[in-house]
Amino acid sequence: MIGRLVFALPGNEAMSERLAALLGGEVGRLETRCFPDGETYLRFLSPPENRDVTLVCTLAHPDDKIPALLFAAATARELGATGVGLIAPYLAYMRQDRRFKPGEAVTSRLAAGLLSHAFDWLVTVDPHLHRYASLSEIYTIPARAVHAAPLISDWVRTNVTAPVLIGPDAESEQWVEAVARTAGAPFTVLEKTRLGDRDVEIKVKHMERLQDRTPVLIDDIISSGRTMLEAVRHVAQFTEAQPVCLAVHGIFAEDSDVALAREGARIVTTNTVRHASNAIDVAPLLAEALTSLS
Amino acid sequence: MIGRLVFALPGNEAMSERLAALLGGEVGRLETRCFPDGETYLRFLSPPENRDVTLVCTLAHPDDKIPALLFAAATARELGATGVGLIAPYLAYMRQDRRFKPGEAVTSRLAAGLLSHAFDWLVTVDPHLHRYASLSEIYTIPARAVHAAPLISDWVRTNVTAPVLIGPDAESEQWVEAVARTAGAPFTVLEKTRLGDRDVEIKVKHMERLQDRTPVLIDDIISSGRTMLEAVRHVAQFTEAQPVCLAVHGIFAEDSDVALAREGARIVTTNTVRHASNAIDVAPLLAEALTSLS
Repeated sequence: MIGRLVFALPGNEAMSERLAALLGGEVGRLETRCFPDGETYLRFLSPPENRDVTLVCTLAHPDDKIPALLFAAATARELGATGVGLIAPYLAYMRQDRRFKPGEAVTSRLAAGLLSHAFDWLVTVDPHLHRYASLSEIYTIPARAVHAAPLISDWVRTNVTAPVLIGPDAESEQWVEAVARTAGAPFTVLEKTRLGDRDVEIKVKHMERLQDRTPVLIDDIISSGRTMLEAVRHVAQFTEAQPVCLAVHGIFAEDSDVALAREGARIVTTNTVRHASNAIDVAPLLAEALTSLS
Repeated sequence: MIGRLVFALPGNEAMSERLAALLGGEVGRLETRCFPDGETYLRFLSPPENRDVTLVCTLAHPDDKIPALLFAAATARELGATGVGLIAPYLAYMRQDRRFKPGEAVTSRLAAGLLSHAFDWLVTVDPHLHRYASLSEIYTIPARAVHAAPLISDWVRTNVTAPVLIGPDAESEQWVEAVARTAGAPFTVLEKTRLGDRDVEIKVKHMERLQDRTPVLIDDIISSGRTMLEAVRHVAQFTEAQPVCLAVHGIFAEDSDVALAREGARIVTTNTVRHASNAIDVAPLLAEALTSLS
């Protein structure tokens, strides 16, 4: 039997190598370059014919990646792939999940529509599902979300002495509680009021739990970084221990990684989005989900 | 009767104003911004309900523009537009029109597929149709290409004393001949050998026609600028008159506009792609085509 053929869109080479190794598959060669007017050129150097094809493309800053991804999927199919799936360790367009104000584009449904049309299945890590209970509400293809919480618990248990886990807002409570339970650590949650895309106000409760412990601030995503930055500053009022900022997805818009480091934080992320802070490898979770899907 | 509602994607505001004025329509308000992870937020502030909607988006450097364009079209439809058309003064993805080498993505068909699915009709200016005889070979919607040649002839006749028109390669011969005839000027064509995306070799013939005339080098597109730059340098061997570089679409990758200016050229383009050299307005052609389509 010929194994799975894994192709990396630009920037996803390391993850593709890991996945192919875990799946007993093979990394295919995909040539990509830019024409002078900015169009993408794509060529499969490893033939997809009669192969089960997996494309790997994380979708932070998704807009300029989406056309190439759609073109690659369609071309793999034209070239005779038996199936074409997507591994998007970070899945974009999960925010705008309804028309909050008249006239808004519900981009989560629209992006899901594009990807559902192009791919046979999708695997991602902890999508930012607020109001959807599951990906199947917007994706019409089999779409599996794997959860990094167990890996994060493991990391905390192995790497932090006497941790206290801190969720930066009420939304994170359930999630932080689960990580804390597995890690065998106490936890607390901050009260966050969002004033806009980039403005956040934090209030503190149960700060007595920080006494003599290493604060580990956990969120699913560090995006603008404002929430995490405010949380780090508040926590610093109650303890002198160096805080750890832990997230599944490290986007770090506006150099917020630099700002967090300047506040003395140690930053730790999973490798869903490539960054110097990547310390937790989600490839085994993705490979397992992928195997169970097909 | 309520007139046409024209919306500009970012960067297309000036063209939208011109078109709305020419069509007796109205410029609608479309709010767009970026979430911190690079996702696009879109909101129609002017209701598309029961309106004939035109989106204006030129497609130089198309990849990061295509998702927002598709989302805007789908949203206008959801919000009750009676029809949704696209004016793309520069239309991308015309280069890769067949599989020259095994495994290549035929991006012209794939991009046309995406746009045909999203829009009811399309109007563009001089698409780079090499091997397709017309847009209808790849677009399944009514797609109209308007030709800037008459406007270019007019510009030459009005602005250049004793011009000689020069096509930078054999491909341009028919086109340059037509412009020259209408402008009442002699013409010649250079022989170009393309060595790669960005490398070009030029050979010269009939350079005696340049005597005492202003050389006007004409191409449909200045992309990497190599062809035009080589042509300007060759022409400089035969005349001391300042050359004019005239193109429909001025992409100017790799600062080739600066390089051309450094060689002493005067650059003139149409406004299909916004640039300081825009001197020829294609809006009347687009408005006319649009009126005839619907």
